[in-house]
Amino acid sequence: MGTPGAGMAADIAEQPGVYAGLLEPAHADPIAAVAAAIVERRPRHVVFTARGTSDHAALYGAYLTEIRLGLPAGLASPSAVTVFGARPDLSDALVVGVSQSGGSPDLTEVVRVARESGALTLAITNNPDSALAGAAELHIDVAAGHERAVAATKTYTAELLALLLLVEGIRGGSGSVPADEMRTLASLPGLAETALADPTAADLAPRYRFAARLVTTGRGYAYPTAREAALKLMETSYLPALSFSGADLLHGPLALADPDVPVLAVVGAGPGGAAMREVLTRLDERRADVVTVGPADVPGATARLAVPEVDERLAPLLDILPLQRLALALALARGENPDAPRGLAKVTSTL
Amino acid sequence: MGTPGAGMAADIAEQPGVYAGLLEPAHADPIAAVAAAIVERRPRHVVFTARGTSDHAALYGAYLTEIRLGLPAGLASPSAVTVFGARPDLSDALVVGVSQSGGSPDLTEVVRVARESGALTLAITNNPDSALAGAAELHIDVAAGHERAVAATKTYTAELLALLLLVEGIRGGSGSVPADEMRTLASLPGLAETALADPTAADLAPRYRFAARLVTTGRGYAYPTAREAALKLMETSYLPALSFSGADLLHGPLALADPDVPVLAVVGAGPGGAAMREVLTRLDERRADVVTVGPADVPGATARLAVPEVDERLAPLLDILPLQRLALALALARGENPDAPRGLAKVTSTL
Repeated sequence: MGTPGAGMAADIAEQPGVYAGLLEPAHADPIAAVAAAIVERRPRHVVFTARGTSDHAALYGAYLTEIRLGLPAGLASPSAVTVFGARPDLSDALVVGVSQSGGSPDLTEVVRVARESGALTLAITNNPDSALAGAAELHIDVAAGHERAVAATKTYTAELLALLLLVEGIRGGSGSVPADEMRTLASLPGLAETALADPTAADLAPRYRFAARLVTTGRGYAYPTAREAALKLMETSYLPALSFSGADLLHGPLALADPDVPVLAVVGAGPGGAAMREVLTRLDERRADVVTVGPADVPGATARLAVPEVDERLAPLLDILPLQRLALALALARGENPDAPRGLAKVTSTL
Repeated sequence: MGTPGAGMAADIAEQPGVYAGLLEPAHADPIAAVAAAIVERRPRHVVFTARGTSDHAALYGAYLTEIRLGLPAGLASPSAVTVFGARPDLSDALVVGVSQSGGSPDLTEVVRVARESGALTLAITNNPDSALAGAAELHIDVAAGHERAVAATKTYTAELLALLLLVEGIRGGSGSVPADEMRTLASLPGLAETALADPTAADLAPRYRFAARLVTTGRGYAYPTAREAALKLMETSYLPALSFSGADLLHGPLALADPDVPVLAVVGAGPGGAAMREVLTRLDERRADVVTVGPADVPGATARLAVPEVDERLAPLLDILPLQRLALALALARGENPDAPRGLAKVTSTL
């Protein structure tokens, strides 16, 4: 397996290049063609289905769909179909299966059943030859290349960017991302380099060496980042990490917060970040130890993982980068090998 | 406040009576009228919106909707609408806001915006005079009576039963629950008494006195129970409790499981329970300490919270009962007052 963590470190470092590659016509044009096909079919709502890390990308896709396209979007539980035999009428829907491997039998079954019921179906994977890609009418290749570590990093952010290109292409009306938006997206590889160059993530890892638990939180577009950061910490460091939308945190789990429970809060420079203010105030009242991820300092926070300021819609592509690095550094500080977490396989098969 | 936990204990004990009350014509008939109105309007899909405990009831509603009605169902994030200004076209949808207090401004806003866009809207609350009830075209009163403790128990299960009556009434075609199904539901108060009489929950609490974390899991209809049990443990005992669908647990968080991480697994006598077998095998391989909730013993499990055997569709109304009792007993064992958890209020206002 080589040096522990070398695979995950290499995967993480490749993300700016993965962004640049996806933005090239060789990859962006096929995504535009998929977007054009969706525009033509005019689905009335969008149903995402995914597991694990890809479920967090799907959550980002759902926010984009509702906010940018004005289409209702939801995440479907595969088990309703695969375990309980549900056959929902999806003839008005676009059904999107997201999976890095494309190898999950349950997602493939959900997409197959949806296609039979007349839904427009789309698979977003890192493997065009996968069963999921074959089951769906449309396919997007996120083109992240081979991922070395079991814990997904570059395939996650490639899924995010593919979803963003898809949604902005649909919004544009022709399938192609409008030129001014494309210019904005073209800055992402450079901004990702900047985010990855910040040393704070590695510096912070020792603070969590003996943490028994951790809470992550964010609102809106930042919520998928909070969820994914928690999963990464659990997978690689076995640190129980609880993620909550900022609003849900106030509905109960806030009681958990005290000076012994570290909190990672994703606070953007927009409406989602502004909506976190009350959450941060309540955490401060409870003397919680808060580290933020975002472009600006937050009063009362212990430290900040700095990322360049962008529209919150784009921030998930940057905010997760220092959090991936934190998960890697913490796993190594705890003597674990994040390239091969105990008990896990790269492709998970569930029915 | 009286004796610590007395309020929560009284709320828990009232649940068989709340079930019996909701099944009486005085409450069941108005629910049938709502179901008939929905049948007439023929929504193409259902969008639930809720927070905290009520979000778990909404998740149960989504499973029921997909499996029993063949309608696509999803859970909407209020923040897309309230924070980011999304205005999804919901004219084909039934939008259901679930909230015990009916006092959450964000849910009220989501329902108001949905109603403006032409959606059929329904509020399910324990307060017919609430803002949420007023904002929706239709309202269901779950009639649980005053809840003493901050941690919701009887309002949660009353929401579950109201959703079940609603869905079975829609399925029946006239709004009324078919007679044979109603006979089955009539057994619930007595079965709930039986579930609450089992002493195991209180006996198990000392085992978790010094636990630093806990994992809950279940599949399908049992997944809302796993989520709600985790929230109850966090709210009342400040025990970090991570909940995963059985399938998602295998996608990463399984790495957390070891002999020091207690697992509560909800294992029913049907397809959801059968689908948990692989999960239980994998947990056993990792020598996790597994306590199950369900009608039958599971090989390798340390103990079982016994509940009467029912169709898994009805099991959420029973399975949560011993878990509520466990949360109460553990909070008391830890010297906490579950009637008034630190940092929490009964009505949570988020925008």
